[in-house]
Amino acid sequence: MSVAAGSTTVGFIGLGVMGAPMAGHVLRAGFDLLVHARRAGQAEALLQSGARWAATPHALASGADVVVTMVGFPSDVETLYFGDGGLIESARPGTLLVDMTTSSPALARRIGEAAAARGLRAVDAPVSGGDVGAREARLSIMIGGRAEDARALEPLFRTFGKTIVHQGDHGAGQHAKLANQIAIGGTMLGLVEALAYANAAGLDAGTLLSSIAHGAAASSAMTNLAPRLLAGDFSPGFYVKHFVKDLELALRGARDELGLDAPLLELAAARYRELAEAGYANDGTQALYRLYREKSG
Amino acid sequence: MSVAAGSTTVGFIGLGVMGAPMAGHVLRAGFDLLVHARRAGQAEALLQSGARWAATPHALASGADVVVTMVGFPSDVETLYFGDGGLIESARPGTLLVDMTTSSPALARRIGEAAAARGLRAVDAPVSGGDVGAREARLSIMIGGRAEDARALEPLFRTFGKTIVHQGDHGAGQHAKLANQIAIGGTMLGLVEALAYANAAGLDAGTLLSSIAHGAAASSAMTNLAPRLLAGDFSPGFYVKHFVKDLELALRGARDELGLDAPLLELAAARYRELAEAGYANDGTQALYRLYREKSG
Repeated sequence: MSVAAGSTTVGFIGLGVMGAPMAGHVLRAGFDLLVHARRAGQAEALLQSGARWAATPHALASGADVVVTMVGFPSDVETLYFGDGGLIESARPGTLLVDMTTSSPALARRIGEAAAARGLRAVDAPVSGGDVGAREARLSIMIGGRAEDARALEPLFRTFGKTIVHQGDHGAGQHAKLANQIAIGGTMLGLVEALAYANAAGLDAGTLLSSIAHGAAASSAMTNLAPRLLAGDFSPGFYVKHFVKDLELALRGARDELGLDAPLLELAAARYRELAEAGYANDGTQALYRLYREKSG
Repeated sequence: MSVAAGSTTVGFIGLGVMGAPMAGHVLRAGFDLLVHARRAGQAEALLQSGARWAATPHALASGADVVVTMVGFPSDVETLYFGDGGLIESARPGTLLVDMTTSSPALARRIGEAAAARGLRAVDAPVSGGDVGAREARLSIMIGGRAEDARALEPLFRTFGKTIVHQGDHGAGQHAKLANQIAIGGTMLGLVEALAYANAAGLDAGTLLSSIAHGAAASSAMTNLAPRLLAGDFSPGFYVKHFVKDLELALRGARDELGLDAPLLELAAARYRELAEAGYANDGTQALYRLYREKSG
């Protein structure tokens, strides 16, 4: 089966800040689109643009050639794929199951195996780029699964992705995404602590950034998040609660699965957990600065 | 006194990988140049191009309008400024003393006070940009001291600097540089651990970078150091031993001077100290990856 606008029916489950704009791109590219979300209201704009509603995951899987899932947590993914009326038991033979949630590599492998046992195909394909990347159709998509399935999905992925890379077998997409989050963890901790140090030393943070933002300390976080942070804007580009989830997933992967000592990841997970527990789970990741400001008074 | 090519004699002490190219730019811009280095051989090329040799710091200070120091460690700076025949006692009234070594903010303040007491002027002006930035005359110069002295030095700083910013009073240049190093510490720890995680998970690191190098995890370190690291090239752009020095300075500043909890900085200092103690002090900072490779076998 080849995936193409005009002939392929895509089922999309999960229409949050990421899923809704992604599904919109799929629809505008000419794919037949079936949608489902826990909160039906999230589908309204898509339905008005020509998408069709599926009342349950089972109904959606029964009528789709490709099923994309973009939900919140690994537990949601597990229920969706393995629960009663779940995708594994509901999808028609040959269906391509595409989990784009940032989730557990081990769960991705389980889905891959269960899918194969039922004559289905599955890939894990988490993304980076955030809600802005989703709206502007320039996500980075990291794919785990068989290379031929990754290739087959390209016409679909191109509707909302810019960088589309097959990372390896089932779970490799998730591992790549978690590696990405580890790198971001280090950059965020360093950036925020540098600004806290500068603040404590009596420097003007904006003046500091004019010295350091384009040299060896340069990062996407410094360019995009430091100005927000310094303006006291802690609104979410990327939620603290989601970053905690990702860092905990990476930590479990490093410790339990890979046997890797990961001291930076441990610190990043601990700091962001502390921030979430202090009541800032719904802030953006730049809010880590609050831990310093509040300590120093 | 205004600083200008053709009328100002610049004395330059310290002609290592940073100092030598910086002094070369000063000379080529038309300044009269006096040089001194512990190892006289380091001055040879400059002397052949028209610089004059000063046998001691005292001789240099006695004949210069501006004295630039670019040496290794805060202890070297202390000896140079406060030792017998040091710059504070040797310089002529009105001389501008410019320490460009990455050094202690507290020492920079002491120099500022001692200089003022003798009718001298002093600024701290550490740089970032490394040996490449020094050769290509595009260093970032972070200045602490009086604004009028920072302004007066611009014609000199422009010969080797691109980003020249007055950060505040004596010591503020050093604090800015240390904040820069804290941010780099986080970025390096995150980058290296992300690559170690990817390696342990069986990903191809080059393929991983093609997914993540231009998104939210992007950094100067990822662009410039990850390819070297993955090629097994641990040669120094920036030495581990110097980074350890900088992180220890920042840690003392945070703890003892500012009363700031700095967990990321503590971890970065501990990891790089561990790397130096394992025998890799003369590698480049990307060699932090060795701590992971050697642990996982």
